[in-house]
Amino acid sequence: MKKPTIVVLGAGYGGLMTVTRLQKALGQNEAEIVLVNKNDYHYETTWLHEASAGTLHHDRVRYPIKSVINSKVKFIQDSVLEVKTENKKVILENGEISYDYLVIGLGPESETFGIQGLKEYAFSISNVNTARKIRDHIQLQFATYSTEVEKNEDRLTIVVGGAGFTGIEFLGELANRVPELCKEYDIDFQKVRMYCVEAAPAVLPGFDPELVDYAVSYLEKKGVEFKIGTPIKGATPEGIIVAKGEDEVEEIKAGTVVWAAGVRGNSVIEASGFEAMRGRIKVDLDMRAPGHDDIFIVGDCALIINEEINRPYPPTAQIAMQQGEVIAKNLTKLVRNESDLETFTFENKGTVCSLGEDNAIGVVFGKKVTGKTASFMKKMVDNRALLMIGGASLVAKKGKFNVL
Amino acid sequence: MKKPTIVVLGAGYGGLMTVTRLQKALGQNEAEIVLVNKNDYHYETTWLHEASAGTLHHDRVRYPIKSVINSKVKFIQDSVLEVKTENKKVILENGEISYDYLVIGLGPESETFGIQGLKEYAFSISNVNTARKIRDHIQLQFATYSTEVEKNEDRLTIVVGGAGFTGIEFLGELANRVPELCKEYDIDFQKVRMYCVEAAPAVLPGFDPELVDYAVSYLEKKGVEFKIGTPIKGATPEGIIVAKGEDEVEEIKAGTVVWAAGVRGNSVIEASGFEAMRGRIKVDLDMRAPGHDDIFIVGDCALIINEEINRPYPPTAQIAMQQGEVIAKNLTKLVRNESDLETFTFENKGTVCSLGEDNAIGVVFGKKVTGKTASFMKKMVDNRALLMIGGASLVAKKGKFNVL
Repeated sequence: MKKPTIVVLGAGYGGLMTVTRLQKALGQNEAEIVLVNKNDYHYETTWLHEASAGTLHHDRVRYPIKSVINSKVKFIQDSVLEVKTENKKVILENGEISYDYLVIGLGPESETFGIQGLKEYAFSISNVNTARKIRDHIQLQFATYSTEVEKNEDRLTIVVGGAGFTGIEFLGELANRVPELCKEYDIDFQKVRMYCVEAAPAVLPGFDPELVDYAVSYLEKKGVEFKIGTPIKGATPEGIIVAKGEDEVEEIKAGTVVWAAGVRGNSVIEASGFEAMRGRIKVDLDMRAPGHDDIFIVGDCALIINEEINRPYPPTAQIAMQQGEVIAKNLTKLVRNESDLETFTFENKGTVCSLGEDNAIGVVFGKKVTGKTASFMKKMVDNRALLMIGGASLVAKKGKFNVL
Repeated sequence: MKKPTIVVLGAGYGGLMTVTRLQKALGQNEAEIVLVNKNDYHYETTWLHEASAGTLHHDRVRYPIKSVINSKVKFIQDSVLEVKTENKKVILENGEISYDYLVIGLGPESETFGIQGLKEYAFSISNVNTARKIRDHIQLQFATYSTEVEKNEDRLTIVVGGAGFTGIEFLGELANRVPELCKEYDIDFQKVRMYCVEAAPAVLPGFDPELVDYAVSYLEKKGVEFKIGTPIKGATPEGIIVAKGEDEVEEIKAGTVVWAAGVRGNSVIEASGFEAMRGRIKVDLDMRAPGHDDIFIVGDCALIINEEINRPYPPTAQIAMQQGEVIAKNLTKLVRNESDLETFTFENKGTVCSLGEDNAIGVVFGKKVTGKTASFMKKMVDNRALLMIGGASLVAKKGKFNVL
């Protein structure tokens, strides 16, 4: 009997967790494991805001996939175009592969909700490439300001669209980085403006209001100006247009606009004909796509409802890794012809939102934390992801220890 | 009797050498010394190619003026607009000052010879601000290439206009930096092109031909393509237009164009009504401007003919510092009412052209040198400038020792 082929698409938190658990659980003869990823490295999505602000080098936020997989896994570096579910094939940019079992762990895409100009003129914190582009772009704005005879101060304005997790964490880094940049480029800090523009009426929706207040007043003290309840109507080469009241609009001129207000699932989901909401599939309890016994969904493309509040769980590294563990177990059962698949339940270990190098807010094991304690917790959360996927040696190589 | 005021304009090699010698030679009661400079720091013009390529941080190429002047010198941070010789005044952007003796040590300006588009679309290695802009611009080109879906390889092309000293030294740094950038931005080195475009029929005119051959073949091996005898006709947002044969032109598309083929004296010279050739005054033997007993010219704005070849000495740090020493001596004599002013004679200690971190070519004390020896010599030349102006402590702080 031919051994089954398990194909995992994407080496993000979910995909890599699935693969690293599978390579431990399964014997060489039980299954062939194939991992497909665009890059030959994994990157820490949850650290990209640091690379984007320039507070952490982008090589610190990635590691080679080869360093965490073993000889049981065949790695293919390629981009996924489509899944042909009817003949169990994945179409890649440079070829195709057949699967017996498939795990879709493809990453998210930026969602601009049709707002004009955002795609062209705003950056998004999506991957290592876009992160270093944001960093380099901001630096060039500062460098250009220093050289130009007629100074354009708007160059020094940075607009962050979105007061969610990514937006706030990015602003936390920026608030630390901008004074450094000012020193580096001989620019008066007073000339720089940092805006957080959010359509919703609140910062960090879902977070404890007391912690949100703490975050907002901390960032304000560091120079961030909040424009809450202010929808972005469009982006231009000169900045953004925002709504002002019911009918009016206002222009905010800015040399840098970063859109951090929306992600959706991967468009491969729709291209492959799955039923989905913005690229996310409402998965069965065992993490399979409805109607597809051979396909699991992990991470950003998986939609699971939090029954307590009747809203989807936000796509986080934490939930993706927990899903990956369950999927690896369920695949092991399927390969061994066991039928009692496990059910996924999210165990919320807490959430910490970083406010820069030495501050954060969060709820950990049900307790509210702020300041250095929260910042320490955040770094431990970051290190835990490394530990779960690559073990202690990866923590030693890539971990965050510059605390307390 | 009121003590005379000596005003020195510019804190480059010549101006700072004059001031630091004067503060040693003159007593507190003999003269008031005023130094005017745009920035509160001095920068090593001869190291700017490194900061521009990104091989040396721009803070390594500058030091605070306060660190080398003492309490005898009054420092004014301002820009010079004009010298009113008839009433012995200097007009600054934010005020004016009177002088009894004046030393003009203002820096050079880029000379584009009327070539269309160069001012708008080409960078020049002129100061700390332009250096970091070039560095950041190149990085953003590499970052953008990594993010774009339809790859524009021309982005990765860097054109250097000019095969003189600055052009070649910059290419030497680039040739080392580009492979690092490729690694940093995940780009195949084969996709990057580096051009040296020069209108004259030779590289490094005036240099020993054997050394020139060494330099060209070394840089070619590192990926630089030379287009010699090729005048640049214009620059555009997409690159440059060069002459091809008698009547035709050719486009070289490039994401970065650096113009390193021409400098002129400072335009304040013409604005002040001095007789000059491209902003440079043919000085008297004692370094004074003809017809102006109270005005000395040092550095880039001073024109002195090398009688051996009947051509002007190129404006270098070496000649500027030697001039500064003589000017300080002559000012001391004038303040003390002595009339036997010294005559300036250039003592050529040799010239070394860097080809990057660990290679160079040069003639030192009449001997040709290449490779590590020449590179070591170059670093010693660089350190000597620090020593002459700021003493051993400045060498310890800012010197170059990463050799052999």
